Amino acid sequence: MKMFNKVAIVGVGVLGGSLGKDLRAKRMAGEVIGIGRRESSLKKARKVGAVDTTFLVSRIKDGVKDADLIILATPVGNIVKLGNVAASYAKDGAIITDVGSTKRDIVEKLEKSMPGRVYFVGSHPMAGSEKGGPLNAERDLFKGRDCFITKTENTNNYALNKIRRFWMMMGSKTITLSPKEHDRIVSKISHMVHIVASALVIANRDVLLHAASGFKDTTRIALADPVLWRDICATNNTNIARSLDKVIKVLTKFRDDAASNNIKRMASMLEDAKDLRGSLK
Amino acid sequence: MKMFNKVAIVGVGVLGGSLGKDLRAKRMAGEVIGIGRRESSLKKARKVGAVDTTFLVSRIKDGVKDADLIILATPVGNIVKLGNVAASYAKDGAIITDVGSTKRDIVEKLEKSMPGRVYFVGSHPMAGSEKGGPLNAERDLFKGRDCFITKTENTNNYALNKIRRFWMMMGSKTITLSPKEHDRIVSKISHMVHIVASALVIANRDVLLHAASGFKDTTRIALADPVLWRDICATNNTNIARSLDKVIKVLTKFRDDAASNNIKRMASMLEDAKDLRGSLK
Repeated sequence: MKMFNKVAIVGVGVLGGSLGKDLRAKRMAGEVIGIGRRESSLKKARKVGAVDTTFLVSRIKDGVKDADLIILATPVGNIVKLGNVAASYAKDGAIITDVGSTKRDIVEKLEKSMPGRVYFVGSHPMAGSEKGGPLNAERDLFKGRDCFITKTENTNNYALNKIRRFWMMMGSKTITLSPKEHDRIVSKISHMVHIVASALVIANRDVLLHAASGFKDTTRIALADPVLWRDICATNNTNIARSLDKVIKVLTKFRDDAASNNIKRMASMLEDAKDLRGSLK
Repeated sequence: MKMFNKVAIVGVGVLGGSLGKDLRAKRMAGEVIGIGRRESSLKKARKVGAVDTTFLVSRIKDGVKDADLIILATPVGNIVKLGNVAASYAKDGAIITDVGSTKRDIVEKLEKSMPGRVYFVGSHPMAGSEKGGPLNAERDLFKGRDCFITKTENTNNYALNKIRRFWMMMGSKTITLSPKEHDRIVSKISHMVHIVASALVIANRDVLLHAASGFKDTTRIALADPVLWRDICATNNTNIARSLDKVIKVLTKFRDDAASNNIKRMASMLEDAKDLRGSLK
């Protein structure tokens, strides 16, 4: 079902590319424009069928012109800057969203700088891959996944509903919440987890040659792009520190029980964890 | 190639069952006996082709009689007890090994109690599954995996070499080391990792409904049988406490950097982790 005449995607990596593939396959847009920094990535995006037409970011003006929807799908650190540039060339009534993993910083800044005739609504689909780039873009990447959508006192209701419908058509389960609440939740279920996986690798540097499949599964997310994660840390550091405090507290309990040979309490905590983990679909 | 006339496997779960399947398929034994606590499990083990004949553990005497090799494949907490019973009925020259995840406690106790005419050598194959039971037994489970084999001043060389060849024929890469060194290494690469995965689940209790695939991969090992893990904690608690200290130290560094917004150092640690993790095959 066609929702937009023209959609411009800034950043044709695994997230932007996958959105483009779905937009085209579901015929949700008359035309999908890809905008990127490197001609080589744009070429790949065209080749895998993620976009109809492409522009280098130096020609972002031509890329976003007449777009009803502009999706910012770059690393978190570039979203605000490119969002401002895109907004300055956007048509009246255009909606801009993003797919960044942190929301407070991005939403605050873009809401402040957005021209009145352009609407910004923040999104964060809980999907991705430690393998980036347009060649890893895939159909239905967002199907069945949570997608957080931010709402503030400045959010335009028409734009919010349109963005909600957009993600529902991608197959996502949408959750509307404040940027602050988003950043708190995601610092726990995602950002802190990434850091813990990385810490496991670092702490085991001397015994890595004995790593088996359990260790590899547990630390796979540590393979993700450090640039993405630097930006995430920079824009959600306070929540991340708090979430790390929490997991360190639980680990210290385990540590103290191990040191004092309180196996009964260790076992009951492990049982609790197994039950909780088993409850996830 | 036939190495043994008769092999008795005490415990027909995923490890014992997989060994049985390989022993039979590779024709390494004239006969494979399965010994277990429940007739229902023994029946499953026969059905999936893991063993030729079975005995309830109450008839362990008949099961281990004439066996050249006895493999103890029960949870760590039962290995010493069943090892002693098996040894008392074993024929002269029989070799006993186990597949337990901790070695110091087991090897010390079984070496002390072993009758002179029976040889014990500890093993720990780095393979398994969070899904237990004979129905999850599979061919080639040990292929390409590390298998630790313990050597002490009491170890009989003939038996050690036979056990080494046994695991090599299973396709494992054997590593011979002291029980103490084994427990130190494995507390890091396996035991502590299991506890960290469990701690992540517990610390995120309130946000689990937002768990995505990254979180699920990172915490999958928390699904393993808590009884196995209670025994592992009980027999390796000092090393586990030390390994937890180490990972808590790394996490505290991350935590302090996040709190003080030292993003540069966080990013460099994440990059280090990605490189290390990327070096694993």
